Parts: sequence; structure tokens; C-alpha cells
Amino acid sequence: MKKSALSQLGRRTEAPPISWLMQLTLDHPNLISLAAGFTDNESLPVVETRESLNEILASPGSGRAALQYGSTAGDPHLRRLTADRLWKLDSMEGTDFNSSADAFPRRAGDVRGALRRHGVAARGNYSPERMLITSGSQQLLYMLSECLCELGDIVLVEDPTYFVFLGIAQSHGFSCRGIRLAADGIDVSHLEQTLESLRRRGELNRVKMLYLVSYSQNPTGITTSFVKKAAALATLKRFELAAGHPIYLLEDAAYRELRFAGNDEASALAAEGADERVIYTGTYSKPFATGVRVGFGILPKPLLKVVLRVKANHDFGTSNLLQQLLCRALASCRYETHLSQLQRRYARKAATMTRAMREHFPAEVLWQEPRGGLYIWARCPGPVKSGVKSKLFQRALKHDVLYVPGELCYADDPTRRKPNHEMRISFGGATESDIRTGIARLGATLREL
Amino acid sequence: MKKSALSQLGRRTEAPPISWLMQLTLDHPNLISLAAGFTDNESLPVVETRESLNEILASPGSGRAALQYGSTAGDPHLRRLTADRLWKLDSMEGTDFNSSADAFPRRAGDVRGALRRHGVAARGNYSPERMLITSGSQQLLYMLSECLCELGDIVLVEDPTYFVFLGIAQSHGFSCRGIRLAADGIDVSHLEQTLESLRRRGELNRVKMLYLVSYSQNPTGITTSFVKKAAALATLKRFELAAGHPIYLLEDAAYRELRFAGNDEASALAAEGADERVIYTGTYSKPFATGVRVGFGILPKPLLKVVLRVKANHDFGTSNLLQQLLCRALASCRYETHLSQLQRRYARKAATMTRAMREHFPAEVLWQEPRGGLYIWARCPGPVKSGVKSKLFQRALKHDVLYVPGELCYADDPTRRKPNHEMRISFGGATESDIRTGIARLGATLREL
Repeated sequence: MKKSALSQLGRRTEAPPISWLMQLTLDHPNLISLAAGFTDNESLPVVETRESLNEILASPGSGRAALQYGSTAGDPHLRRLTADRLWKLDSMEGTDFNSSADAFPRRAGDVRGALRRHGVAARGNYSPERMLITSGSQQLLYMLSECLCELGDIVLVEDPTYFVFLGIAQSHGFSCRGIRLAADGIDVSHLEQTLESLRRRGELNRVKMLYLVSYSQNPTGITTSFVKKAAALATLKRFELAAGHPIYLLEDAAYRELRFAGNDEASALAAEGADERVIYTGTYSKPFATGVRVGFGILPKPLLKVVLRVKANHDFGTSNLLQQLLCRALASCRYETHLSQLQRRYARKAATMTRAMREHFPAEVLWQEPRGGLYIWARCPGPVKSGVKSKLFQRALKHDVLYVPGELCYADDPTRRKPNHEMRISFGGATESDIRTGIARLGATLREL
Repeated sequence: MKKSALSQLGRRTEAPPISWLMQLTLDHPNLISLAAGFTDNESLPVVETRESLNEILASPGSGRAALQYGSTAGDPHLRRLTADRLWKLDSMEGTDFNSSADAFPRRAGDVRGALRRHGVAARGNYSPERMLITSGSQQLLYMLSECLCELGDIVLVEDPTYFVFLGIAQSHGFSCRGIRLAADGIDVSHLEQTLESLRRRGELNRVKMLYLVSYSQNPTGITTSFVKKAAALATLKRFELAAGHPIYLLEDAAYRELRFAGNDEASALAAEGADERVIYTGTYSKPFATGVRVGFGILPKPLLKVVLRVKANHDFGTSNLLQQLLCRALASCRYETHLSQLQRRYARKAATMTRAMREHFPAEVLWQEPRGGLYIWARCPGPVKSGVKSKLFQRALKHDVLYVPGELCYADDPTRRKPNHEMRISFGGATESDIRTGIARLGATLREL
């Protein structure tokens, strides 16, 4: 029997790049991986987790509650704590870090202004009733793709973007179009041009959302200003009549709390019209522990209803024990304490990496000082390609160092050639000593070419 | 704007019955719910969980490992422990419980014979390499539906079956056909007739699998004999040439470990040809703790590859902390100790329920003595309907008692009228006192009609 029983989705879904990147790691035992999106191992909150779990499991009452099924939407207490946290983040003035890298203009004034303009209305956007808890924010990206995107549909993404999202698109058979990135987020006029050209070609009815990884973006590290988010939202709105349906702004704030320099920006939830069009996703996996897979989302009510139905079919609710653990960590301030330590730790690891890059990388390789997240995005000079089949990638492997080829982070967008001379390198998982050695090896490889 | 941006799936997916059943519970504060599939609250393993987690989180080494990302397939140690457990269950002689309800013939001889016939070959079916860990077995049911079933496809199910699976089918737009159930599992000749009639109508190419909840089935409590599983597998095989592709047997063993009377039956993994066609799913949620959502599956290798790609898009792996918790509980024998207590407890709760049913139910209501699982399936006499709109259901609500109407557990199968005079009642979640009161109320309602 030659034919398989697979569905179209089953046939179509390709292996994620992460599988063969991991296989390379296994095949090269001395390899230093600057590719993995793992978080820092030494600072994982072992003590905080133990204390929190012991409190929960000390009494039969709270212990049993944590070990029983919860609701599909998630624990009400965790939703309230999370919603309140978000509201505070969006309504307070951006914190000022003592960072020499602080070169961008501050947006705190804009944010305050925007919030003032929307006043009480904005508070309602942060209601626990608009929120659901998920198994990492990844699960929400998946369910939203299922609920909104059909085979042949179009999602607008940053160019480059989070490559696992591109994998979801590939699996579901919708396509992604890249919107150019500037230092403060997407180029809003390019967004407008793209929408306009889709309108002219009669494809606007296929456009379902704009996906932005808005804080310390994976892979570039760029943070989108609030002003740009608000402008993007307004731009989408102008094309809705021609599209014939809502076009959502999906804001993925996975790296928001991993900022260690510069100011915070308010989320798109603070913008005008956000209640009906903005989907905000966040996660506790990266700021707390990646082994604890708890994410969350705030959604327009009609969309939330549909996603909850799908979530009921997926798993009827994220593990209650993990949710209670986060409730306890948040309520006891262990979370906050851990987070400040983590931010300082990543700041140090990032500094270790940039110091090594200044020492070992040729001056022709361009990159920005990171202000948060886990990644540095480095651009090789024109002739030097960085793709999987490139000399650079293969020689780096021989030198026992691995990066994520930039091409993996670009959508298959027919309107431009896919760039192929960038690298995503991570200071998240590797030790400081491995960061120094890995960058030295990568620098040596670069200088060879 | 009238049109929504939803995909076909987003538009199609209906609210799960569980949502309005839960809403009813909230609307009737004095309601005793015999509907919920919750597990026994008092016996949840609070101490075992605390001890296991403290061991894991006592040292930075094991603590950090549990708090970091794992692999998409799941922790290798947990996969090995689980695979070994399954192999032992399938290869040992059925345990003899002292149960007065033991009226079915024992199958242990058949199982041993079957295993002997396949010898070494069968051992390979229980390889950790064929296994993945999921967020509850529900997630695997979902991913398999995605990977195998297209809009318009057909899955054969027990008549009645697990209603959340029917929800997944509804959402994905594939249909289910019911195969009649006997006391020892599906009627294999009805399976054959159904396949034959689908072949004649040219619909066999849409048939992707047979889904069996094979141990203490939800909702009927029926356990499928190994002989029937092997016969069903052989029957499916005979129709594959006409179908043009493999037809899988999906065995859902969610309630296998919750058996408290009668003998175990070997799984379909022990049958001939299982390595290429049997998908086995199990879970630690129900036997250990529903707040800890860890399930597992054993799959034919080519299918496993595809499901792992999809799992990478869903969540790139189930929470490592929960997996380590189960490893520790299994390796320390806390799991086994807890399980025996749990089985005794459910035996007692089931006895409490059947005693009350004998006292309060009219003799015309038919039901079987449960031997495991969480449910009793009761059939009302011909004229008494049990559906959502029935007098029985509405009057039961007035008497403050809730059951799951049997009709929810039947597929929309055009070849027969949907039965509408059965009830699923659970002894899992309610206290013994509530079981007695709930059954008395339900009995009073039944006698009124």
C-alpha cells in the first residue's frame, strides 16, 4: 500500500528547523550552541519553586485544589494577578535603567498620553474575563492560527520573525508576508503599502492578522514603540472595510519581562480600539522557568469564546498545579525577586557576549547592543552568506560552534528575495565561558572568509 | 462589518457540552453533580506529590533539569518507565480480584497465548522510541485527529463513545460511525458489516481509524477483551486494500489503571500487526492527579514522526517539571502505592453508588456493576427519555441532581436513530454522602415518571 492515511495537514507539516539543529548538537559532542533558545540554566528558580510548591502542598485544601482539574480558561486567581500585572506595566512610566546603551528616545510620555486619552475604557481591556491561560504562549499562537487562518490565508509578520510561527503557518498552509523592520519596530508605511498592494490584487480578504513580537524581538532584539503599535492598529483598521472582516493585531510579548536596558513600552492593549482588535500573548515560561509551561492571552471577547472551545478539545485546561505554582510565586513576590536577578544575569551575559564580539568579530559584521531578550542579530557583509548550506555555517560547525541561520527567520514572501547573511546568536542558554569561547570560534570562522 | 475573520474550523467548532453542564452546576448552588468526570478529591496524592517534588528540587542538578525545556517527544526516562510498565501489564497474567461481580470469562489465557505467538516481536512494540509524552491523553487524541482526518473523513467509534472525542470530530468536520457494543467490547461482525457497507458506497477511502476506549469505557464501563481487539485489528486490515491506505486502531486506555474488579486485558499492542497499525494512548492524569496533565502514546513510527512535528508547533514538549514529578513518583513506588489506595477507594465509592441504586432506582432501570473507571451507565425503560430536553433531565435538575444525558455520547450516525434513554452517572468526584443523596434524588425522579 503506497498511499498514507494522513490528512493534508499531516502530509504538509515539515520537520521544524529546531529538530535538525538539535540533531547537529547531538552529532557534535564538543559543539557550543549559540543557537538554542534555552534560558539560563544556573538561575532557574529551584528554591523559589520548592518553597512555593511546599506552601501549596502543605495543606490538604490547597494541595487538592492544585491536583484537581481546573477550568478551560484557567485559574481565576492567576488570571486576575496576570491582568493586574499587565495593567500596571502598561500604565506606569517606563522604568529607567542605568544603561549606556540607552540610545533610543523614550516613549513613556507617549504612553501616558495615550492612556490618558483612553482613560477608563483602557482599564477594561485588562479584565481577567478577557483572558485565558495556556500551555506556554506557543499554544495560543497555535490555536489562534487554527481559529483564524484557512489554507491560502495571509498573515503579516515582521521581516524577520519568530521561526516557529512560520512553522505553524507552513503546517496550516497559510502564507506570511514580511513587513520591514526599523530600530523601533515595523515600518508602518511598508505595512500600508503591503496592505494596499494586497487590496489591489484582491487578496485583502485573505489577510487575517498582523503578528508582532513586540519586545526584544526574536530574532532581532528590536522593541516596537507604542506609537508604532498604535499606528499599525489604525492602519489595519483602515483596510478592514475592503477586507470585509476584522484584521487583528497579534502582539506576542514573550520577551517583555526579559528587558535589562532601556524603557518598557505600553502594549497595544493601551491603544485606541484595542478591545476589539488586539490579541496579546505573554508567558511565564521564559521569565520564570521554561520547564513550567504557562502562558496567557488577552483576546477580544468573540474570539476568546471560539479559542476556549478549541482549547477544550486540545486539553480542557492547562495543568492546575503549574498555575497554582505561578499564583504562589507571583503573590509571594518570589517571582519579582527572581525576575530582577534574572534581568541582571542576562544583562551580564549579554555584556559578556558583546565584549567578545567586539574583540573577535570583524568590524564589517553589524549588530545592535541588546536591551533584553535572549538574542543578538548579526549581519555579515554582503558577500558572506550565513545559510545552512553556506561556507560560514559549515565552517562554524567544523569549529564546533552553532548559530541559527538568519534565513530560517524569514517568511517565504514572493515580493522580496530572502536575506541570507544574518545570524541569530543567543546568550540565553550557554555559560559565560561558553559564550566567550563560542564567539571566539565564530569570530575566527568569520575572519577566515 | 458583518463577516467574521474566523476560519472554517473557528466557525464550525461548537461549545462543548461540558461548558453548559458546568454552567448548570453554577446556576444551581445545591446541585449534586453526578455528571462531572472529576476524580476523587480526598484521595488526591498531596503528600506523594510534595515528597516527590522536594526530592527533585532538593538539588540544583535535578531541580534545574526539571525547570528547563525538555524535548518534544518527552523525557527519555519517563518514556522508558512508561514503556516498561505497559510491557509488564500486557505480558503478565491478569490479576484476580475478589469480586462478586466477576461474571465475564477470564482472558488471561488468551493473552498469554497471543503474546507467546508473537514472542520477541511484541517486545519491540513497547519501545520508548515509539512513544511520546503529551499534555494529557486528550492532546494526543487532538493531534491524531489533525494528522489523520480531513473534512468529510470517517472514524469508527463505539456506540456510545467518549463525548469529547465527538467534539474534536465536530470541530474538524469529520464524521463518526457507531459500532455496537457488547459486554466484552464492540460487536466485531457489526464492524465488518459497517466497513463492508462503506466499501459498497465507495466511502472506505474516507475511513481513517477505529477509536476504542478499551478499559472501563467512558461512558459504559465496558472493557474490551483482547480477543476482540485482535479480531478488530484483523478486520480493519482486510479492508485496507479497498481503502487504499492504512486504517489504524486507536486504543484509548485512559481508565486502564482504575480497575478494581475483574481481570486486566492485554492491550491491542500485543496483537499481530500492532506495530504498524495500533496507536495506544494512556494517561497519568486520572490514576495520579488530574491537575498534573501528563499523558502518553505509543505510535507506529511513520505516524509518530508526523505527530511530533505537530507537537513541536503546539508546544514543543509537555512541561518538564510535571514529567519529572511522574518519573519520581513511578521510580519511588509512590505511584503504585497511591494507585492501590485509589482502586480501593473507587471500589468503595462504586459500591456505595450501586447499593443506593438498588435501593432507590426502579427495577426497570438497567445497569451493570462497574469493575473500574468512574462511571455507571444506566438505561431507562423504553418510554422514559433521558435527553437534555426530556422530563427526566429537567425534573432531575429540579431535584438538584445532574447526570450526563446518554445522547451526548452517541455519534451523529445516519444509519441508526440516536438512543435517548440512558444516563452516565459518575462515582468519581462526588463524596460518598453526595453519591447516596444524589442517587436517592435521581431515584425519586425516576419513580415519578
